[in-house]
This record gives sequence, structure tokens and C-alpha cells, in this order.
Amino acid sequence: MKPIEDLSCTMVVFGGTGDLTHRKLIPAIYNLEVEGLLPKNFAVVAIGRRDLTDEDYRNKKYEGIKDFSRFKLDEAIWNKVKDRIYYKKLDFTNAEAYNELAPYLKGIDTKHNTGGNRIYYLAVAPEFFGNIVENLDRAGINHIKNTWQRVVIEKPFGRNLESAEELNTKIVNVFKEENTYRIDHYLGKEMLQNIMVIRFANMLFEPLWNNRYIDNVQITSCETVGVGSRGGYYEKSGAMRDMIQSHMLQLLSLIAMDKPSNLDPNTIRDEKVKVINALKELSEEEVKENVVRGQYGANNNEKGYREEERVAKDSETETYVALKAEVENARWAGVPFYIRTGKKMPKKSTEVIIQFKLEEDRLYFNEDELLPNTLVIRVQPMEGVFLQFNAKEPGTRKKIAPVHMDFCQNCQVGINSPEAYERLLYDVMRGDATLFARWDEVSASWKYVDGIIEAWKNDRPQFPNYKSGTWGPKEALDLLDEEDRKWLEV
Amino acid sequence: MKPIEDLSCTMVVFGGTGDLTHRKLIPAIYNLEVEGLLPKNFAVVAIGRRDLTDEDYRNKKYEGIKDFSRFKLDEAIWNKVKDRIYYKKLDFTNAEAYNELAPYLKGIDTKHNTGGNRIYYLAVAPEFFGNIVENLDRAGINHIKNTWQRVVIEKPFGRNLESAEELNTKIVNVFKEENTYRIDHYLGKEMLQNIMVIRFANMLFEPLWNNRYIDNVQITSCETVGVGSRGGYYEKSGAMRDMIQSHMLQLLSLIAMDKPSNLDPNTIRDEKVKVINALKELSEEEVKENVVRGQYGANNNEKGYREEERVAKDSETETYVALKAEVENARWAGVPFYIRTGKKMPKKSTEVIIQFKLEEDRLYFNEDELLPNTLVIRVQPMEGVFLQFNAKEPGTRKKIAPVHMDFCQNCQVGINSPEAYERLLYDVMRGDATLFARWDEVSASWKYVDGIIEAWKNDRPQFPNYKSGTWGPKEALDLLDEEDRKWLEV
Repeated sequence: MKPIEDLSCTMVVFGGTGDLTHRKLIPAIYNLEVEGLLPKNFAVVAIGRRDLTDEDYRNKKYEGIKDFSRFKLDEAIWNKVKDRIYYKKLDFTNAEAYNELAPYLKGIDTKHNTGGNRIYYLAVAPEFFGNIVENLDRAGINHIKNTWQRVVIEKPFGRNLESAEELNTKIVNVFKEENTYRIDHYLGKEMLQNIMVIRFANMLFEPLWNNRYIDNVQITSCETVGVGSRGGYYEKSGAMRDMIQSHMLQLLSLIAMDKPSNLDPNTIRDEKVKVINALKELSEEEVKENVVRGQYGANNNEKGYREEERVAKDSETETYVALKAEVENARWAGVPFYIRTGKKMPKKSTEVIIQFKLEEDRLYFNEDELLPNTLVIRVQPMEGVFLQFNAKEPGTRKKIAPVHMDFCQNCQVGINSPEAYERLLYDVMRGDATLFARWDEVSASWKYVDGIIEAWKNDRPQFPNYKSGTWGPKEALDLLDEEDRKWLEV
Repeated sequence: MKPIEDLSCTMVVFGGTGDLTHRKLIPAIYNLEVEGLLPKNFAVVAIGRRDLTDEDYRNKKYEGIKDFSRFKLDEAIWNKVKDRIYYKKLDFTNAEAYNELAPYLKGIDTKHNTGGNRIYYLAVAPEFFGNIVENLDRAGINHIKNTWQRVVIEKPFGRNLESAEELNTKIVNVFKEENTYRIDHYLGKEMLQNIMVIRFANMLFEPLWNNRYIDNVQITSCETVGVGSRGGYYEKSGAMRDMIQSHMLQLLSLIAMDKPSNLDPNTIRDEKVKVINALKELSEEEVKENVVRGQYGANNNEKGYREEERVAKDSETETYVALKAEVENARWAGVPFYIRTGKKMPKKSTEVIIQFKLEEDRLYFNEDELLPNTLVIRVQPMEGVFLQFNAKEPGTRKKIAPVHMDFCQNCQVGINSPEAYERLLYDVMRGDATLFARWDEVSASWKYVDGIIEAWKNDRPQFPNYKSGTWGPKEALDLLDEEDRKWLEV
């Protein structure tokens, strides 16, 4: 590991008046200060089009922290944070405006003794990513010797491999890969960080973590809400691009990756990308058999997707995807990875279930009730690990029943894990890209997802095909049923 | 499995006025009735020297159930049980007296329609075992065609291999091995029955259950009490005979046994005895290095062993043993089994701890706090399974901390597992000898234990060598310390 470098920096947020900044970024900054992790020499410059004074902006963010911070707002801490937050009115699509931004940021650097290190956080719509980066470069804003200059790109990184490549080219023209931090905020979640530790810091799990002992893996991320006010964005995305390409394939790669030889960010990501590259490519016929898409329809008082704001009345955008993926390598040959994600499901939950095989030479072969062992990694809203195994039912001669063990990381009142953004911002300051998607990961994921979306084009979906508040289309059950398996309860 | 046979029987208890009958056997009979497991055609005949009527005896047992039954005494159930309990005054050392017993028992058989099936339960001092069996045989009491006749022998079964063989010869002259039920009441405990289920009805554990993954096994059975009023018995026994030869080696064999090919009692016991036979024999020199004996001394207001009733002032009887055993087979080569048992310890607990190895190619090699995984099987007073593994400490970058999962079988108020004797009596009625020690197990255990006791004869112990209320002699710590291990907290 390289030594911890100087964390001093100015963080420039494009999209300073947006929702992400309000709900996540500024509260994360505040929480880092609560935990004593915010560097002493630090400032935030929020960029927006609105006409606001620093004071106006700070007052709004004060309210935002009250509403969204995991630590209760403490005036003493806020006082230490607020004078380091600035608002700069700027039309970031206007190249000229950057000429004015350059000296302004230098002034902030000097005032806060940040040494000229910068984070450029692009919390704006993806169509502006390339433009902003080019403008920064043109105005020489990121050309400061003996400093670090890092760019943080919010999801989505492109909408297919082609657009992602285009965007990436624009970025790498200005920032090197090692200075480019592609956010997948799932990677900042405690339990995703924990997957590697659980797998590789214990003797108990790794020897069983292969096709000899594991029957199948189920990765579920379901939410109860619908598309809400995000119809405009979602129409161009859908569950496959919004969830599978990023969060779900990241989860899969952490579960399936081989043990890296060390903890260097690139060594880890080398192993992760190998998993995505090993995913079995699906032919058009195989997509029909292995991928199920769905769209929620009305149910009782709940609107269907096509009735949502800014959604076409005949929209073919999927709000649900279930698929069977296969990792074609020695460890996983023959083990299906069932992945599903959907909106308007009966429950909000993200979790990974490792279902072990039943022993082939079963000693207790008369016991119909014998259930396979399962290891469940709960990502959200609960965080923890859950294990189900078989034990003798007390007081009986030999009746066997499943019993449970639970390790709950975040289920006590008053204990809450850090928000993903705290960890991610802190890592950008530290220069640790482990929890960010490297370009080859992004491109490999797009390649896989593009193949499926391409196949869909020749096949009109019968939408809506599941009712709001239910577990998705029937075909998603059939997907496992045909292989004598079933989705385990999340 | 053979079909369940007729459970109807008369149970003849020698030692009917003794402690075991009062505290364990009659309450177990009562609890079996509560659970609906007591056969309809059933009677108990308690044999003793005292002058008591059936009524006297029943009244005493009524009080015993109140004091010792796990289910609260319910008059309605007691009324169903009490008329099936009889008291017979008899000097069981007097061969003549058995001539009178024969017709008496036939009368009971007829009255309760037991079909002549009998259990002869020897709840008396071991020196009477042989005598009673011979007397039963001489009077032809157990010679009834088309019935089953079973004998139950309480611990201790001999005090060394020679005396055990003598006793066994007397018994097998009268009862066949398959009709001889040697009690080791630990085998009736829920969690001992559970060990096989946990090991063999799950995919999670068996692949790890060998010297590739397990560093060492620790088996502890400690109690807080001293020898109490049992000094007379204990002086002739000591911890090695009282605990190691029976309970501890039974526990070890369940933990270490290979998977039996079926659940037949003899198939299971074939595997268990293989473990005992594979125990490394210790030379006199090796006994010095691998076996530690101790005797508790006074501490504050607590008496030392030598001050106890009916104990010699210069007694060399051990009240504590710790030893390192090795199972010499392919599965366990190189894995030490550390066994300890003692009186007047700081805590009452029987448990098995499986300590796994640390992974050799540790990824988190900078983490000094990384602890090995442990699986703990709690036998008493708590019953359950406990698992310790490593996880990321929430909110930290990569600090790793041990976390726990607990499956508690018997830790809720109001839920209590059946007493060992309920299960064991029921199994005798059913003719299932799985949870009883077969002769070859007993003889193999004595052979191992005799070797150690023999070596001790040439080496005077320095007793007392641990204080009442402490964890035994220092040498017991050294035993593991020398191998860079330590006793894990029970």
C-alpha cells in the first residue's frame, strides 16, 4: 500500500443545487467532520446556475443536513464546516465562464491552504460530463503542478458501450484513468465492502466457495417504490441499464471473484473484471430463455408505470429484470447466478443468497424436511450475515429442522453504518480507487448488457406484465422452476 | 431401521430408594407420560431394602417429581402414572429373595399387560452389578419366551479394563450385548445427539472437518462444585475415571468420527470406536508431557479436596485433568484434541470448540487482530452452536473484527430440552442402543485411560496444585502455550 497522501483539497461540485448534493454530498461532508475525517485544509465550491449568496447556500444546506444527515446536526460542528462551503454561480455549459472560475478556485485554494489539490465532482446529468471536463481542461483549471486533480463521475456512465466509450475518451483526454473515479454508490455500502473480508479473512467460507459446494447464487435488489418523478430519466434507461449494468454486476463480481494476491486497488479490480469478462454471452435465443423483463401495471390505487409522469403511454421500458447468468470459469462452471431487480415489489431489500448443495450421500435421506444450507449477505436496509443450517429438533428422536444464525451489523437502534458517500468521498481524497468502477469493468458490463438489450429489440414485450406490489412476472418464477429451483425469500 | 417394536414392559429398578431414581428416573417416567411417550402397558417396580408400602413410595416420588421434573407436576397426569409404580422390599444381594421376586413380577406383568418384556435397571453401586445379573438369571427371572429382556447398567462400568472385563463377562453370560444398555448419560443430552446432525446433515461443515482446515479441538467440561458428599466414591475414581474415560471420550468420538454409511446403532458405534482405537497411546514419558492432573486446594472459605468428607488427608486423587490427545488417522493427523475437566472451576460449562486454522496465504496480513474462526458446540448448561468469524468493522476503512453468530437451542425462558434420562429410557424401551456405550467402546476407553493411570503410579503428584475457584494448575496452560495455543474461553 502506498503511504497516505495529503488529503487537503478543494472539492468543486458541478450540480451544486441538485438533489444529490443536497441529500448526499453535503451531509457526507458534515458527517466526515463529525467523525474527524475531514481534512483540516478543505473547501467545497458548489456550482450552480441560480442566483445565491454563500450565505443563502449555506442556510439551505443547513436544512439539508437536518433532514438527511445520519448524525444529528450539532451547531458546533456545523460552524466548523459552514465557512468552508462556497457557492459559485456559473453556467457550466459556457466555456467562457471557466476563465473566471480558474482564479476564483485559486483564491479558495489559498484561503484554505489546500495546496491546489482538487476534486471535480460531476453531479449533473450525464450529457454534460464530457463538456465540463473539456471546459476545465481548456481553461487550464486542472493544470496545476505538484498537485492531484481528480474527477468523480456519477452514474450513469453512458447508456451503452458506444456512448460510454465516447464519454471515456473525452475524460481520459483530460484525466488519467487513475484520477477518474466512477461512482457506483453500492460499492460504498458497508456490506459490499464486507464481502471481500468475509470471503477472504475467514477459513470457514472460501474452501466452500465454488461449484463443488454451491448450488446457485441469488442476487436480488428490489424496491417498493415506483419510478416517482424520475420518469424522464428512467424512460431512457430502464432496469437493465439502471441496475443490472452497474450495481448488480458489481455485486456479482465481488461474490464470484477469485482471491486477489494483494489489496492494491488495481489487483482487486483485475479480479473483478475477470468475472464480468467470464460471463457467458447470450445469443438472441438464449436471451429469450434466460432473461425476463417486466413492467409494473396498476394495482388498486397504485399507478402503473405507463401512467407515471413523463412516461410514454405505450412505453416499453422495463422496470423489472430477472436473469440467469453463468460465470464460465473453473470455480463457477455449472452454478447459475440468478439476478433480479424490480420496482414496485412487495419489499425493499438488497441481498445475496448463497445456496449450498445438499450433500449427495445424504445420511438423513428419509428426512424430507432437510433444507440446503444458505448464507445470506444482507446489503440493505438491514446489514448483516445470516446462516441457515440443519439441526436436530429438540426433544425429538431424529426430526431435523433448519435453524438460523444471524450476525446483524446494523439492526440496533441508534447504530447506523456510514453512508456510502462518506466512504467514497473520503476515498477520493485519499486517492484510493478500490471502490470505484475502472473503465474495463464499465466496458465489460456494457458489453454484456448491450447483448441483451440488442436481442430485446426484435421481440416486443407484452407490458405491463406484473401488478404493482407483486414479485414480478410469472416468467421469472419459471426461470428457476424449470431447473427445479426457486427464488428464496428475501 | 427395524420397525418400532412393542414398547410394553415392566421396568425393575434396583436401587429404587436411591438418589438417581428419585431425581432422574421417576421424573423421567413422569415426563415421558406428559409427552405422550410412555407406553400404555407399563409398570415400574422399585426395589429397595427399606420397609415401605407402595403408597409410601408413591408419596415420596410425588415429592421428587415436584422437585426435579422439568414439567410442573400436574395431578391429572400424576394420577395416570402413580398406579403403575410399585415398591418391592428385597435384599438384592440375597439369591434366595429372587425366587420370591419372579412370581411378583409376573403378577405385575399380567396386571399391566406388559407381555413379559422387562427392563432391569441397575441404579446401584457398581460392585453389585454382576451379582444382581447372576441372581436374576439363577432364578430364571429373565427367561421368558417371546419377550425382550434388557439390562441397563449405570456408570461406572468397571474401574479399569480388567475389572470392566470381569463385569462384562458376568453380564454377557446372562444378557447378550444387544440387550445390554450401558448408560453414559451425556449421550442422552440434546447437543450430543445434535453433533452428528450438525456434522452430517449440512454441506457447510463436513468439508472443513479435517486437518486441512482445523487447527485444534478443545473439549471442556468444568463444574463449580467440589466433590460434595461423594468423597467415598470419588476417592476410588478421580477425574480420569469419572469423566475422561466416559463422557469426554464419548464427546471426542462424536466430534472426530467418520461419517457412518447409515444410521444403524452398530454402524454408528463402529465409527465411534474407530476413533478411540486410533488414539495415540502415550508412553510414560509422553504422559508426563501431555497429561496434567490437579487437585483443588482451599481458597478463602472454600475447602480443599483433602478437607472434604470421606477423603484422605493425603489423598492423591485428581479432581482435574487436562490432556492432549491425538487421533492417528488421515482426517486428524497433526490436530491436537485438548481435553480438560475439573471440579471447583470458576464456571460450569461443557462445550466443544473447533478452532479453525488461519488461512496460510492471508490477504489481510497486516491485521494483527485477525482471529481464527471458531465453531463452539455448547452442551450444557446452555445448548447451542456459536460461530465466530471475521468481518469489517463498520465505518472503518479496513479494520477487521471478530463477529459472532449464535444459534441457541435452549436459552429462552420456558423452553427446556428433555432430560437425558427421558430420551435414554425411551430408547431402551424402543430397543435403540445408539446412545449407549457398546462394550468395545468401553474397553477401548479403559485401555487408553489405564495407560495414563499406570504411568502416574511412578510419579507422585504435588497436590493440592490449584486453588478452588481457579482454572486448574499452571501446567494445563503450559500444555497449550508450548504449542503457541491457548485454552479458549468457555
